[in-house]
Amino acid sequence: MNQGIIKSKLDEPFITESGHCFINADVAYKTWGKLNASRDNVIVICHALTGHAAADEWFPGLIGNGRVADPAKSFIICINIPGSCYGSIGPWTINTETGTPYKNNFPAITIRDMVKFQQLLLDQLDIRGIELIIGGSLGGMQALEFIIVDNRIKSAALIAMGKSHTPWAIGISHAQRSAIYSDLKWKNGDYERNDAPYQGIAAARMMAMITYRTPEDYNRKFGRKLQNEDGQFQVESYLNYQGDKLAKRFDALSYVSLTKSMDTHDVARERGSAKEVLSNISIPVAVIGINSDHLYPVYEQKELAALLNNATYNEITSDYGHDAFLIEFEQLNEIIEPFYNKHRNRLEKNDTVKSL
Amino acid sequence: MNQGIIKSKLDEPFITESGHCFINADVAYKTWGKLNASRDNVIVICHALTGHAAADEWFPGLIGNGRVADPAKSFIICINIPGSCYGSIGPWTINTETGTPYKNNFPAITIRDMVKFQQLLLDQLDIRGIELIIGGSLGGMQALEFIIVDNRIKSAALIAMGKSHTPWAIGISHAQRSAIYSDLKWKNGDYERNDAPYQGIAAARMMAMITYRTPEDYNRKFGRKLQNEDGQFQVESYLNYQGDKLAKRFDALSYVSLTKSMDTHDVARERGSAKEVLSNISIPVAVIGINSDHLYPVYEQKELAALLNNATYNEITSDYGHDAFLIEFEQLNEIIEPFYNKHRNRLEKNDTVKSL
Repeated sequence: MNQGIIKSKLDEPFITESGHCFINADVAYKTWGKLNASRDNVIVICHALTGHAAADEWFPGLIGNGRVADPAKSFIICINIPGSCYGSIGPWTINTETGTPYKNNFPAITIRDMVKFQQLLLDQLDIRGIELIIGGSLGGMQALEFIIVDNRIKSAALIAMGKSHTPWAIGISHAQRSAIYSDLKWKNGDYERNDAPYQGIAAARMMAMITYRTPEDYNRKFGRKLQNEDGQFQVESYLNYQGDKLAKRFDALSYVSLTKSMDTHDVARERGSAKEVLSNISIPVAVIGINSDHLYPVYEQKELAALLNNATYNEITSDYGHDAFLIEFEQLNEIIEPFYNKHRNRLEKNDTVKSL
Repeated sequence: MNQGIIKSKLDEPFITESGHCFINADVAYKTWGKLNASRDNVIVICHALTGHAAADEWFPGLIGNGRVADPAKSFIICINIPGSCYGSIGPWTINTETGTPYKNNFPAITIRDMVKFQQLLLDQLDIRGIELIIGGSLGGMQALEFIIVDNRIKSAALIAMGKSHTPWAIGISHAQRSAIYSDLKWKNGDYERNDAPYQGIAAARMMAMITYRTPEDYNRKFGRKLQNEDGQFQVESYLNYQGDKLAKRFDALSYVSLTKSMDTHDVARERGSAKEVLSNISIPVAVIGINSDHLYPVYEQKELAALLNNATYNEITSDYGHDAFLIEFEQLNEIIEPFYNKHRNRLEKNDTVKSL
């Protein structure tokens, strides 16, 4: 996992909304393809909650020859978000003031902070134009904030999220965090890495896995089949496996930090109404919902598309629920590729006109 | 809470499917109204997961003058199920062989065991006919098993459940149990009552509360409103309150036991197909779904009604999700009362014919 990740540092200080300043913050990212001379053939991919910069590993169907993000045509970049545990600053970063990891003193990171952090790297790399930004779930929240604040971006594909984190989604995150807190090894976030609240984050992941899928998917996959003779159902064994798997690869402090970041998502905060904010965005946006998404139901994407000035609503049909954004690559390509090409062709035409 | 509960003992031994025998098992129940001379003017109400025998406290809109269960006309009974912590045998019952509470050695209780347990009390009370049995959720699972095995029953109203517990619902229960297990105070179920896994069951309840409701309900109730200045959302505060409230009134061992009981629900087990089992039931059944139920979606009730020989499918319209069966009493009455009266009138007519 995480092949080809570049580990770098931000030249400029990263200052969070809460006022915490990181000097030479660690930043991990991965790129594909080459920058053109005008440094604007760029596609930015924003990753989701437990994702990382190696987008080709979790978004394989969208990156590659003939796909939306084609390294032969574009310079593609995915940046690990602050708060995560995959190379950029996070709770286990050493606080230079104390010489010990931040742990539970790692500052709150808003979605806007995540965007600012990524902008600092894009500036550092002298990126001058972004043809397309893509994100699903937490990645979509970042991409939406990006198009509000960064006028380098020419188009966006926003998948399976809305204009703000709903109380429903906040409640689900809160229940998951509560499962982590109920593991006494959590120790209010002051645990050691080799004695982490493994069971708590596993239980949180189990809850999450349910909200990511659908009854239909589980019926088809498991039915009431038993896993073994002691009466454990296959679905229980599957959830145990998924819980363990995440507990092994992901950190509980990061899980708490990033889910709280998601809860801050609200384009309207301190900016007036969502309508005022979003109707000012004139770049083309493809908003994509998943018909079976229980976590971010399609009415959120429909609402978002209606509030944006130049957006279309598109729907993926899938039994996979929210997770479809990491599975239904063919449908995603079918929506995003023509959208992007139409827009890119227009860009190229405009460029030609300019150069006449 | 629990006013008017009768605490009694079963005269006959209660033997579980797993072969455990309880002699003089504790049984808690509550009744309303009077038995007629033929001892058949009976309505049985089956309670749900965290419910108890005082059905008038959690089903107030269905019990009373002019309601479906009218004590002026019927003898109404609700029996606390084994495994629960409200008076009938459960994990804290003293094991007469060891002189200590069963705790995690309390035997597995199936839905069929729950029905058998209640039948023993009904026999003891010399109940000869049951005009109507009503249950929602876990209560509905019991009521469905009841009509398969007890030919005293003349009609049934089954709310918000299906022919078997789905992998979706099992998964949700498993994630909740995992939150309890992740609380080190769980101690594999060998905790003391005054040092219980309070946080684990609270986290489990939070997750349950989400599956009992809907995004629409949470939007209307909470929006993104903050509870206090430290940035806690109202929905988080609400879930904390609900988690604490259940942790104070309900036991974690019972929660684990009863959710596992629900997972055993499957009318077909060792009986052939669901179709074979259910098509043999000729009594009238009103199956009731809730349009917004995420936990037991309406297709389960539609399927159940189709499989039963003499059933109608009815739907409650509500934003409350699964919880609607404990809220939308007016709609429930509107469905169940005419169903019951039509059937009771027919019963009375038949009785008249017989007595001529």
